[in-house]
Amino acid sequence: MSVSETTPPSGIEVAVGSATVAADDTTASTPFRVGLLGHGTVGSAFAELLGERAGEIERFNGRAPVISGVLTRTRGDFEEILAGAELIVEVIGGIEPAREYLLAAMRAGRDVVSANKQLLSQHGEELFGVAREHGVHLRFEAAVAGAVPVVRLLEESLAATPIERIHGIVNGTTNFILSEMAKGSTYAEALAEAQRLGYAEADPSDDVSGRDAAAKMAILARLAFGAPVRLDDVPYEGIEHLQGDDLEYACELGLGLKLIGTAERRDGGLSVRVYPAFLYAGHPLSSVSGPFNAVTVESEAITEITMSGPGAGGRQTASAVLGDVVSVMTGGARPPAPPLPMRLLEDVASAFYVHLEVADRPGVLAAVTQVLGEQGVSIKSVLQRGLGENARLVMVTHQVAESSLRAAIALLEESDFLRSTPRTIRVIEEEFV
Amino acid sequence: MSVSETTPPSGIEVAVGSATVAADDTTASTPFRVGLLGHGTVGSAFAELLGERAGEIERFNGRAPVISGVLTRTRGDFEEILAGAELIVEVIGGIEPAREYLLAAMRAGRDVVSANKQLLSQHGEELFGVAREHGVHLRFEAAVAGAVPVVRLLEESLAATPIERIHGIVNGTTNFILSEMAKGSTYAEALAEAQRLGYAEADPSDDVSGRDAAAKMAILARLAFGAPVRLDDVPYEGIEHLQGDDLEYACELGLGLKLIGTAERRDGGLSVRVYPAFLYAGHPLSSVSGPFNAVTVESEAITEITMSGPGAGGRQTASAVLGDVVSVMTGGARPPAPPLPMRLLEDVASAFYVHLEVADRPGVLAAVTQVLGEQGVSIKSVLQRGLGENARLVMVTHQVAESSLRAAIALLEESDFLRSTPRTIRVIEEEFV
Repeated sequence: MSVSETTPPSGIEVAVGSATVAADDTTASTPFRVGLLGHGTVGSAFAELLGERAGEIERFNGRAPVISGVLTRTRGDFEEILAGAELIVEVIGGIEPAREYLLAAMRAGRDVVSANKQLLSQHGEELFGVAREHGVHLRFEAAVAGAVPVVRLLEESLAATPIERIHGIVNGTTNFILSEMAKGSTYAEALAEAQRLGYAEADPSDDVSGRDAAAKMAILARLAFGAPVRLDDVPYEGIEHLQGDDLEYACELGLGLKLIGTAERRDGGLSVRVYPAFLYAGHPLSSVSGPFNAVTVESEAITEITMSGPGAGGRQTASAVLGDVVSVMTGGARPPAPPLPMRLLEDVASAFYVHLEVADRPGVLAAVTQVLGEQGVSIKSVLQRGLGENARLVMVTHQVAESSLRAAIALLEESDFLRSTPRTIRVIEEEFV
Repeated sequence: MSVSETTPPSGIEVAVGSATVAADDTTASTPFRVGLLGHGTVGSAFAELLGERAGEIERFNGRAPVISGVLTRTRGDFEEILAGAELIVEVIGGIEPAREYLLAAMRAGRDVVSANKQLLSQHGEELFGVAREHGVHLRFEAAVAGAVPVVRLLEESLAATPIERIHGIVNGTTNFILSEMAKGSTYAEALAEAQRLGYAEADPSDDVSGRDAAAKMAILARLAFGAPVRLDDVPYEGIEHLQGDDLEYACELGLGLKLIGTAERRDGGLSVRVYPAFLYAGHPLSSVSGPFNAVTVESEAITEITMSGPGAGGRQTASAVLGDVVSVMTGGARPPAPPLPMRLLEDVASAFYVHLEVADRPGVLAAVTQVLGEQGVSIKSVLQRGLGENARLVMVTHQVAESSLRAAIALLEESDFLRSTPRTIRVIEEEFV
């Protein structure tokens, strides 16, 4: 950082020196200088895309963006890049030093664009507050659903719309794995295929545990409801424990399995959570397959709007980052208003799929339904399958508070007719079709 | 208009006098004065929604919007409303006087929001030019796909993305009718049901002819490709001639029928058109049912993004108009850049469904395939159905130029084994699933 005083404050020389615009660009307009922090998959794809599109952006915007400096682990100086840039793009990921750089950039009056879901979901209020205080833009479309512009939908198109509920498939890795399992693969096979295709990392735990989706839902809930939701506030379940035959039975019941994030108003509070769920065939998210993301926003004023698209990929993410840069160049939304306090709910009602391996003897179904009924769990449909060692009951319940369902399951586990631990998965019912 | 000189130029008194913000709103911030032209279904829903949401908009935006004046056929004065407003909302519809009012408002330095697809698709360049010249906002989300924010997607999120193709279901009335026909209704029954539910007007010709969708596709093509496409440039076919058994056979072939608008780059030019088309089950638009709209945008950089939501309804449209108002209040995109010249193509290749009622005698299939083959039409799948007076061939072709298919059909019509006029419908093949 010792070289910062030698950098021209205007930064024009820096910009021209490392311009990525086409060499035959002879325009005299002043370039829009973008400092790039991070040069991995997304960062290098972003620099490439910006170079390809600079001329077109200049055509409708009057100025062409250029990369005026790049910071990596081994090269570049943050202070120097900051001095020479009008906007900072952060695609480093993780908390530090990304947080420190973004705060410093905004305090220096720079607009910033970030693709960092960890940072936004854990330190969002701090970042939003500094952005408001210094009157700068902070944009983060790529942090939530890849190329699907759901942040813009919530911040701009629906800024004046009271939102009731968001359901999202916001992790492409798990959606790919579940799509493969629906075709007959085991969880292990599907995960290996996802890793082979580059959809899953060598250590997939952040994706398959639901934690990545929980971070994204925290950000969406903040935007949709104004409540200061953080990653730590979002309970999440993953897909590691799902079994192939759950998908087979579900298929018979007309259900498809997805890892769903939900943020919704309930009983005057807010519930945000991530969990594997069965969807009826008519649900707008049920047809979203492979490594795609999709988000459905429900509101009385608009009924529902669904957006879907690729959830990952360097070039797709880079496209979302570049869209944010263009948005800043043209004006665009300011940071979210200060947060509203809102009660976060834990015990929310849902329909449930319940899978019980039972002893094959008379009276078992009656005993099960009696236990469920005493806890207020009523059954919508039931399949009785198998004989002897394979006998099982597969049920879908009506809406019931999760605590009631858990109490009923605990009682069933004390009975002598269960052969294994019961399996439960939430069911999202169709409401609009 | 004689009273305009008596109106206070600042308009503050006018604004406060007719404020629709809640009476308990005690803030001292200056209201954002909106002049409303038109007070029909959309206009009255807009005024109501604005009143409900003014407080929330002020919370994140610093100013609350108020309706500072309303113009209807029988009340209000345009000059007075203009003088008292910072932004003009036009929901009159039709060409005049909407065009005259919008031009006058922009020339007076006012930002404008319009829901007028006729006007934008026929006089878009004139409006965009005046908006650029005077440096004002011209926003028109509600003119294209109801509450589905596809204008914003193209103008902002994808402003820096080279787009290859747009497929859209942009008319909710026809999509509802086709959904009903897929369940077994005749065209007449489905239309009557649409009229009963308020989805179709007493004179449905603008919708069912495809003209309404053509206007919207002209606007989308202008945004996506920068070419000055006008309604008159867009060939369109409607759904009036479709027959129930086309849908039945299509179902057997795994196809669903939609009224599709397409705008795409082809052979260095641009093709924009509206036509009934069969979609394979995996296509992102195939699951869009009822009075919904949906648009899929394809680009190498993003693969594809699909957005869907309600296509009509006063409150949904009003929600899109209010989103535009908020967008203007927060900055937001400027009018499109001057148009690029681009060649408009007419003869584009497609796969086709071909339905032939034929004489029930040996050699007919061979004769048909020979005629098709000579014109370069190759067959992907064929069903031969019925006997005697009911014999028919139902085929799906591979991609072929429309002129070649028409030439082959003309030759077939000269043969002695056809019992009726051949029916053809385009087929959109899945590319991404």
